[in-house]
Amino acid sequence: EYHVDWDVSAAEKGGYDWFMLKEIAEQPQAVADTLLGRHSADGRLQLDEMRLSDSELRDVDRIIIVACGTAAYAGLVAKYAIEHWTRIPCEVELASEFRYRDPIIDRSTLVVSISQSGETMDTLMAVRYARQQKARVLSICNTNGSTIPRESDAVIYTHAGPEIAVASTKGFLAQIVACYLLALYLAQVKGTKYGDEISDIIADIQQIPAAVQRMLDDGDQMRKLAADLAGSRSILFLGRHAGYPVALEGALKLKELAYIHAEGFAAGELKHGPIALIEEGLPVFVVVPPKGRDQLQEKTVSSIQEIRARGARTIVLAEDGDEDVVPYADHLVRLPKVPTLLQPLVAVVPLQIFASEFASVLGHDVDQPRNLAKSVTVE
Amino acid sequence: EYHVDWDVSAAEKGGYDWFMLKEIAEQPQAVADTLLGRHSADGRLQLDEMRLSDSELRDVDRIIIVACGTAAYAGLVAKYAIEHWTRIPCEVELASEFRYRDPIIDRSTLVVSISQSGETMDTLMAVRYARQQKARVLSICNTNGSTIPRESDAVIYTHAGPEIAVASTKGFLAQIVACYLLALYLAQVKGTKYGDEISDIIADIQQIPAAVQRMLDDGDQMRKLAADLAGSRSILFLGRHAGYPVALEGALKLKELAYIHAEGFAAGELKHGPIALIEEGLPVFVVVPPKGRDQLQEKTVSSIQEIRARGARTIVLAEDGDEDVVPYADHLVRLPKVPTLLQPLVAVVPLQIFASEFASVLGHDVDQPRNLAKSVTVE
Repeated sequence: EYHVDWDVSAAEKGGYDWFMLKEIAEQPQAVADTLLGRHSADGRLQLDEMRLSDSELRDVDRIIIVACGTAAYAGLVAKYAIEHWTRIPCEVELASEFRYRDPIIDRSTLVVSISQSGETMDTLMAVRYARQQKARVLSICNTNGSTIPRESDAVIYTHAGPEIAVASTKGFLAQIVACYLLALYLAQVKGTKYGDEISDIIADIQQIPAAVQRMLDDGDQMRKLAADLAGSRSILFLGRHAGYPVALEGALKLKELAYIHAEGFAAGELKHGPIALIEEGLPVFVVVPPKGRDQLQEKTVSSIQEIRARGARTIVLAEDGDEDVVPYADHLVRLPKVPTLLQPLVAVVPLQIFASEFASVLGHDVDQPRNLAKSVTVE
Repeated sequence: EYHVDWDVSAAEKGGYDWFMLKEIAEQPQAVADTLLGRHSADGRLQLDEMRLSDSELRDVDRIIIVACGTAAYAGLVAKYAIEHWTRIPCEVELASEFRYRDPIIDRSTLVVSISQSGETMDTLMAVRYARQQKARVLSICNTNGSTIPRESDAVIYTHAGPEIAVASTKGFLAQIVACYLLALYLAQVKGTKYGDEISDIIADIQQIPAAVQRMLDDGDQMRKLAADLAGSRSILFLGRHAGYPVALEGALKLKELAYIHAEGFAAGELKHGPIALIEEGLPVFVVVPPKGRDQLQEKTVSSIQEIRARGARTIVLAEDGDEDVVPYADHLVRLPKVPTLLQPLVAVVPLQIFASEFASVLGHDVDQPRNLAKSVTVE
């Protein structure tokens, strides 16, 4: 039987209308706590629960992340950083698909499972399958002592605290941070990043709680927008590179909570089909990559121009100082300047606020969306 | 400048209202022609345009398929067969994302590009990038002498004939068949399949034109259903395993042509979010895996039960003799019995007919959907 080992009083709403709003507000802390104690003064990363030796980790030549729902999108974000920092190929697979497709895994494959509860049945089954096939399994989990970490070779706990709302928010951010810690640890062990480079990236991640706090402080803009758009039957989300999974997650939150057509696309795919959906007044969120991300920022700006020319109402998330987007943004959401690979951690926050507010305006139960359970303990 | 080298007269609609309907009807021929002359009497596969030596192919330890839109879904279908038959890990990536994410590729990576026109700019750019990075590039293409095959190390031409409708149909089927030929050729070269096993699979694929013809002959059911559902604002598609990309493709066709909310999901992901969308009367197509596919058929049947219990109107695609689905199918579409990995080639056909008919009923231009071009020659 599944037992939640935190105190009920810790789970009160603390003045918020919904647990989800409280948990959105706790994200700076969740990120900070997940980082805590993992980086020594001499610049080395330490992952205490990492029960795999450095020698075993050096053998890893392929990484497969298995997860469901929002956790799978955390994996998609992490894939960019894992490959970029470690030069180990990384695939992300839905847990429910993974074990039925005869995946190619062996002793040098690291299977990384991500589950907030540690009890997600599809993910647990994928973990068991991977271990039967002799892969090493590392699990990222928010719940001490739950089944998945117990059945894994290693674990990195996220320290997001209890998450009560069905729609995951702080769990998602903490999962990305944990994946980044894993990537940096692998980079340290394999030597693909020097110590000072790792310290620099950690220092960048340590700035994220403040950046997330700014997105929270700016939340009124999203609340107004949600009230404004509450009549919409359809809302699209576009992103590129690490912003693509952010678009998927923004859409999933809205699907889960507001039960409307909300769909995320890779902005580069627009012309290959989805642009047919664009019509007068259709709200489209666009996550613009940082200007430092080579040509991607300008390509995204031209996608915004195209959809706007066809009548879309554009809600543009762009970093401070990006003036290129201004003429094409019906609503402009400013993001603090952060490195490319960290942008998802701040860009997703306004989308979370928007989804919860949108659902509130529609009169839905934000914490308990219809048909959904917090922890899916059946297949 | 891009030049189409077939005769205009060959491109007449031949009695059909739309090129798309003509092209759907040409699919048995497209599959047969793409197979033609590739299998010798002594049971060896021959790929004439394969300008890579067997020794080079034996070096391949990773395959990355790059494509856009429908061609990317052909790649997703093929991934299952490629990994199962060759034991080479295979990833599928959107061309527009691929080259911007610092992908891990080297001389032993085979990049497979798929483009009907051979002129898709995003795919061409991905091909150029892959070659700069020293990967070997094989392209699957329907247009002789177009740019992408010219810039590739090797090519497998699909022989689907000219495709005029913007929404790809026969091109999609021929692309899957070409990928399967490639997979079997790799299996032959690497010895992961014996000659008799390859001959058996080829013999199975040779049955597909007749199976597709049956789906065409049964087309009236889809035409009636489309007229019936024409008021729907939202239609969902579910599939598992090789049926998952079929669900994605069925949804994309409807998005492209009918401009409504049409979305495909992995059936196993339902409980992790999308099930919140299910409401009274919502049409949901479900592609049921063959009963031979281990536990997947029963898991899919239980997904159908769940969504139906929440009011969904179920349109179930299941093979002949699968009686388990009967009690839960508001509409039952029978598929001929074919091997698991070949089912996508027949299951997608009713979805194509449905999308074209649905768009016709709405009064849309089926061949020239709004905002879309046949060949996307800009990034």
